[in-house]
Amino acid sequence: MVPRLTTALNGPLLELERKFLDHTTTIEQWFRMQWLDHLPPFYGSVDLRNSGYKLAPVDTNLFPGGFNNLNPAFLPLCVQAANAAVERICPDAQQLLLIPENHTRNQFYLQNVARLVSLLGHTGLTVRIGSLLPEVTTPTRIELANGESLLLEPLVRKGSRLGLDGFDPCAILLNNDLSAGVPEILQGLDGQWLIPPLHAGWHQRRKSGHFAAYDQVANGFAERLGLDPWLLNPYFGRCGQINFHERTGEDCLAGQVDMLLTRIRAKYKEYGVDEKPFVIVKADAGTYGMGVMTVHDASEVKDLNRRQRNKMSVVKEGMQVTEVIIQEGVHTFETISGGVAEPVVYMIDHYVVGGFYRVNNDRGRDENLNAPGMHFEPLAFDSPCSVPDCRQAPDEGPNRFYAYGVVARLALLAASVELEQTAPAEAVVA
Amino acid sequence: MVPRLTTALNGPLLELERKFLDHTTTIEQWFRMQWLDHLPPFYGSVDLRNSGYKLAPVDTNLFPGGFNNLNPAFLPLCVQAANAAVERICPDAQQLLLIPENHTRNQFYLQNVARLVSLLGHTGLTVRIGSLLPEVTTPTRIELANGESLLLEPLVRKGSRLGLDGFDPCAILLNNDLSAGVPEILQGLDGQWLIPPLHAGWHQRRKSGHFAAYDQVANGFAERLGLDPWLLNPYFGRCGQINFHERTGEDCLAGQVDMLLTRIRAKYKEYGVDEKPFVIVKADAGTYGMGVMTVHDASEVKDLNRRQRNKMSVVKEGMQVTEVIIQEGVHTFETISGGVAEPVVYMIDHYVVGGFYRVNNDRGRDENLNAPGMHFEPLAFDSPCSVPDCRQAPDEGPNRFYAYGVVARLALLAASVELEQTAPAEAVVA
Repeated sequence: MVPRLTTALNGPLLELERKFLDHTTTIEQWFRMQWLDHLPPFYGSVDLRNSGYKLAPVDTNLFPGGFNNLNPAFLPLCVQAANAAVERICPDAQQLLLIPENHTRNQFYLQNVARLVSLLGHTGLTVRIGSLLPEVTTPTRIELANGESLLLEPLVRKGSRLGLDGFDPCAILLNNDLSAGVPEILQGLDGQWLIPPLHAGWHQRRKSGHFAAYDQVANGFAERLGLDPWLLNPYFGRCGQINFHERTGEDCLAGQVDMLLTRIRAKYKEYGVDEKPFVIVKADAGTYGMGVMTVHDASEVKDLNRRQRNKMSVVKEGMQVTEVIIQEGVHTFETISGGVAEPVVYMIDHYVVGGFYRVNNDRGRDENLNAPGMHFEPLAFDSPCSVPDCRQAPDEGPNRFYAYGVVARLALLAASVELEQTAPAEAVVA
Repeated sequence: MVPRLTTALNGPLLELERKFLDHTTTIEQWFRMQWLDHLPPFYGSVDLRNSGYKLAPVDTNLFPGGFNNLNPAFLPLCVQAANAAVERICPDAQQLLLIPENHTRNQFYLQNVARLVSLLGHTGLTVRIGSLLPEVTTPTRIELANGESLLLEPLVRKGSRLGLDGFDPCAILLNNDLSAGVPEILQGLDGQWLIPPLHAGWHQRRKSGHFAAYDQVANGFAERLGLDPWLLNPYFGRCGQINFHERTGEDCLAGQVDMLLTRIRAKYKEYGVDEKPFVIVKADAGTYGMGVMTVHDASEVKDLNRRQRNKMSVVKEGMQVTEVIIQEGVHTFETISGGVAEPVVYMIDHYVVGGFYRVNNDRGRDENLNAPGMHFEPLAFDSPCSVPDCRQAPDEGPNRFYAYGVVARLALLAASVELEQTAPAEAVVA
């Protein structure tokens, strides 16, 4: 059971949640129509920030790595949704090759992989794990802290097909975000379902592209519901030619920060929000919370010291940051036992299958809670996001979770639109 | 929580369950391939009998009336599955008209209707209830024992469309089994989704047709798994020209009973089953457990007294029985607190969404547990049927439930095949 959340501000967000509750039928119909036109990603997770006056996505992950954090009671929901995803994308698949990240020392991540293997197995797929690690040259069993184990096997490429020794799968599911680019062994595959498609990897994907698609989705949704889309959507800008070491691109960055802060201030005034506006500067192609900075004034990005510049210039797999997104900061007003909390919603196909709170006792309301080496406490949602109860108050558990699920699905839909827009001309979008 | 079931016989059924557990991947793949070729019914429920040596469906209901008996914790599974069903059958539907049975004094049934309205509402449909009762001439609110209420409204037919006052739905969902035939107001509709199609009603459907389709499905499945199909499939026969009052057709009946008992005896011998074989004689077009008789010897059907003949001759809505199915009886070896129990599995689209036990303290192991006026205690399954755990014993809860779900889905698939075979040439199968 998740402890009851406390939300510091009981103002406008209740209005937003009330609006969702009053229009669940319209919302669900709207989504159903959208999914007729757009192929949902196989899976995804969305980080939300709930400021009391605003509920918005701040990151959408197409290679979700926290299935182990979901309430185990929702496993049947995951299985059912995974069934739907398999039927939609690769109905004839019998064998599936799962390619995870290379974090073999991260017990939390490995438990995520184990959970994925288990839930995909329940859909009737034979699932085996192929490792991109060069040191995995023979099948290698890894023991997990929870008593389970995983067998990592070396990938075997034969012509245009990828598999394992004695295993020629119809489908390959990536749980590796390709931050370092597409490994050669994954290039030029033919006749196998590759899920999600390669262009969903961070070697090609850009947060700014996602949020441009989100603008489009959120505007359509807000119009349908008669809402100000800002209540669901963080402003953003981007700078495409940054070099933190050589201090080039600082003017672009400072200009974007200043423009965003001005726009946010105007909105705060309109809604009577008595908070200090801030923006988040982060790598446009990054993940894992690396290369993230909270900025309250444009001058701050002009006076970065060496440590800050180092921190911002490198993300996962040692990739250099040359493009950044500057995103309106959304204060987290949700706290659990004094710790700052942000909800993370998990989806398979277009179904919300659970979520958890990232809870952090050391960070402020205007800081990123997902950073390397940072301890966060996952707290599984205690009810799914699909069954609001209109007779209860908007901030009661099932209803708050419903609101999370609505905004998370908007972000997932944006990811669909984004992948359509970025699909290479010759690609089969799987 | 459901108390632990006790199964008197720990013999061959464990072998069957073990076989299912060892082949979950094959089973789920097999089902996925089948559902590519066959449209699942919108919803259905299947009565199972578990004899210890055999696990078989004995009735498949395409107008399930016990959603209120399911574990409320599975409501999200129902909502997700209903979403899939709506997307498959009537994705553009926004308004749905639900037409229930006319049992306005049956609180249990009315709570089923309320549960259906609720779960369909969560999929984003505006659901209203249209009554076939002639006395419902104005909107009539019915209070339920659980504090909820239902609004029954008079149906309004306009040309070839059916609706309510101010309500012109895209889809009509029948929760009425049409035992008395298709009411005129439902005939000749055009431009609306009618779910399930009219020919799924008991005015046209025959149990023998269903079990003929089940033969086909069970044989295919058993062959794939290397099983004797008899372990999943009750023998049956039919007599098409019975008149219990005039005592015509008794020879056909006695002959079928004798033949089936002979075949069952041979199977009992093959498997070393030390039980007394019996058959169930029931109306081929009946439901609600009316017109059902347990027979141990052919002579019994020749010596029916007036009371027995009366009991067998009429089913729901006063319809005369002229066709009967004679079905191999399957002893129920499952007991809960001394009462005899049979599992009922609920499905929406092709997903198992829960189930319950019909528990009866007054009936024997070879009797029908679903009869009019009979008290049964519904006991919701405490875990869904989709997540077997191979590390546990075959008769542990999750695994026994998985076995139930497999056999129930075989019966649901048989219903799909049956509806295809009986579809009128011009019908759009919805």
